[in-house]
Amino acid sequence: MSTLVFGHKNPDTDSVCAAITLANLKKALGEDTAPAMQGELTPESKFVLEKFGVAAPEVVTSYAGKDVYLVDHSDLAQSPDDLADANILGIVDHHKLGDVTTGQPLECWIWPVGCTCTVIKSMYNFFNVEITKEMAGLMLCAIISDTVIFKSATCTDQDKAACEDLAKIAGVADTLELGMDMFKVKSAVDGTPARELVLRDYKDFDMSGNKVGIGQLEVVDLSILDGVKADLAADIAALKAEGGHHSIFLLLTDIMKEGSEVLIVSDDESVIDKAFGVKPEAGKAWLDGVMSRKKQVVPNLEKAFA
Amino acid sequence: MSTLVFGHKNPDTDSVCAAITLANLKKALGEDTAPAMQGELTPESKFVLEKFGVAAPEVVTSYAGKDVYLVDHSDLAQSPDDLADANILGIVDHHKLGDVTTGQPLECWIWPVGCTCTVIKSMYNFFNVEITKEMAGLMLCAIISDTVIFKSATCTDQDKAACEDLAKIAGVADTLELGMDMFKVKSAVDGTPARELVLRDYKDFDMSGNKVGIGQLEVVDLSILDGVKADLAADIAALKAEGGHHSIFLLLTDIMKEGSEVLIVSDDESVIDKAFGVKPEAGKAWLDGVMSRKKQVVPNLEKAFA
Repeated sequence: MSTLVFGHKNPDTDSVCAAITLANLKKALGEDTAPAMQGELTPESKFVLEKFGVAAPEVVTSYAGKDVYLVDHSDLAQSPDDLADANILGIVDHHKLGDVTTGQPLECWIWPVGCTCTVIKSMYNFFNVEITKEMAGLMLCAIISDTVIFKSATCTDQDKAACEDLAKIAGVADTLELGMDMFKVKSAVDGTPARELVLRDYKDFDMSGNKVGIGQLEVVDLSILDGVKADLAADIAALKAEGGHHSIFLLLTDIMKEGSEVLIVSDDESVIDKAFGVKPEAGKAWLDGVMSRKKQVVPNLEKAFA
Repeated sequence: MSTLVFGHKNPDTDSVCAAITLANLKKALGEDTAPAMQGELTPESKFVLEKFGVAAPEVVTSYAGKDVYLVDHSDLAQSPDDLADANILGIVDHHKLGDVTTGQPLECWIWPVGCTCTVIKSMYNFFNVEITKEMAGLMLCAIISDTVIFKSATCTDQDKAACEDLAKIAGVADTLELGMDMFKVKSAVDGTPARELVLRDYKDFDMSGNKVGIGQLEVVDLSILDGVKADLAADIAALKAEGGHHSIFLLLTDIMKEGSEVLIVSDDESVIDKAFGVKPEAGKAWLDGVMSRKKQVVPNLEKAFA
């Protein structure tokens, strides 16, 4: 039985591409590994895999009794529900250290960079494994996606240097153009049900005992969302009505204006004011300069909830 | 204020040498770092630092408000009591993943090898930083100590390969001889109070809600301990009487016979039988082939307590 490599729930492009490229690296090093994912591809991820001619990983939701590598997360809330019955061989990630623990020594490569694939690119170099055109393309797209074409506060010089190398191997002449193509796909919302948009890049967090859901939609221009914004607000209210959440926030991030409008349903809206110094009006607030859920939104909300 | 690099409570040779050599590496990479330790040097660590002419790190027990790197542990029980008020920049370790979490992305290098210094040696290579004779000597001694001169079940080919490189740089012609010299120092017990011997390499673990203390003394021949064994048994009983522990185990490891006698005080001695298939007699049991607390004793006890 192959060791499975997989990213977080509601997989984004980094979770999918990191699973594929790490499984490929481990295979080259002699381990019997295969990529997996906890949910379906987003339109962006589908575009990336098709562009570089790589097959989608299998969707697997139960990992009991399996050897596994986690990528792009170390939080139980973002892991499979039966992770406790899996054997974790390692974690490759770029987030804060979550609450996953193990009973055995393991292999962790976790760096404070903009994308898991930046770490994996360094692992290929460290283990002296050749990067194919396909794998380079996937890693390049993941980094462009996670760093919002290098605009995110999480983007580091390491991410940029990795992309320079990867673009050459992948034969990508214009990285910015590739990034705009990806974000146009990501921005497309026509005909997509509101719930699917809310969950497209959505994560639950435990903040001082409160369950807080945070989704994010990144678009090249906020006006793209004008026609669906009311539906999105209604849908996060419906999601909260299903019970269990203190708050659900949906970030509508304008990557060109470099800020986010946040849609809010909360037992206590004042946490937004506490976290960002902005008073919500009619369940919304504009957070200027806020583009990164991980580096800007989660830490500030955690402090506000503490 | 320098970023402090430190290992676990009751520091062993790996915790001390990893703190010094990682601080040295980070300094070479332009970070203002200094090594620290949570307690006094063991006789073995003292011998190692004197042999290679390296100063002992400062003893620091409070880390509130400081930037820190952890080495050789990721468990809160082995961390400073005020770790929650420190800012963890990274972890370099070779144990199972513990319950330390962070609010910010960090740098983790955690590999399933025999010694933290094996990971650090690879980091020097990765970052292309020259290893001095002194740093090589410290890393070499840490690996020899943690792998019990390559005899421990935790020892990997990576540990052996690292030692080969390090011995050359350190100018050590006979690694086995250096190892025997170190273990003779470590074995010396004459005139040392029982409590000091019990705590020399002692760690507390949380096993399914039970506090379990496990100490280990490694000697080149168990007979060295004949004169103090009764005092050691009395001392772990006294330590347990201070309250809070379900069990305290003291492993007396004979590195030549490759096994451990375990001294037992427990609310339920049958956990030893459950964990190792050996019935204790008079508060003792011989565990043949058991030399590694991390790889053999802790996982088996955790299963027995589960």
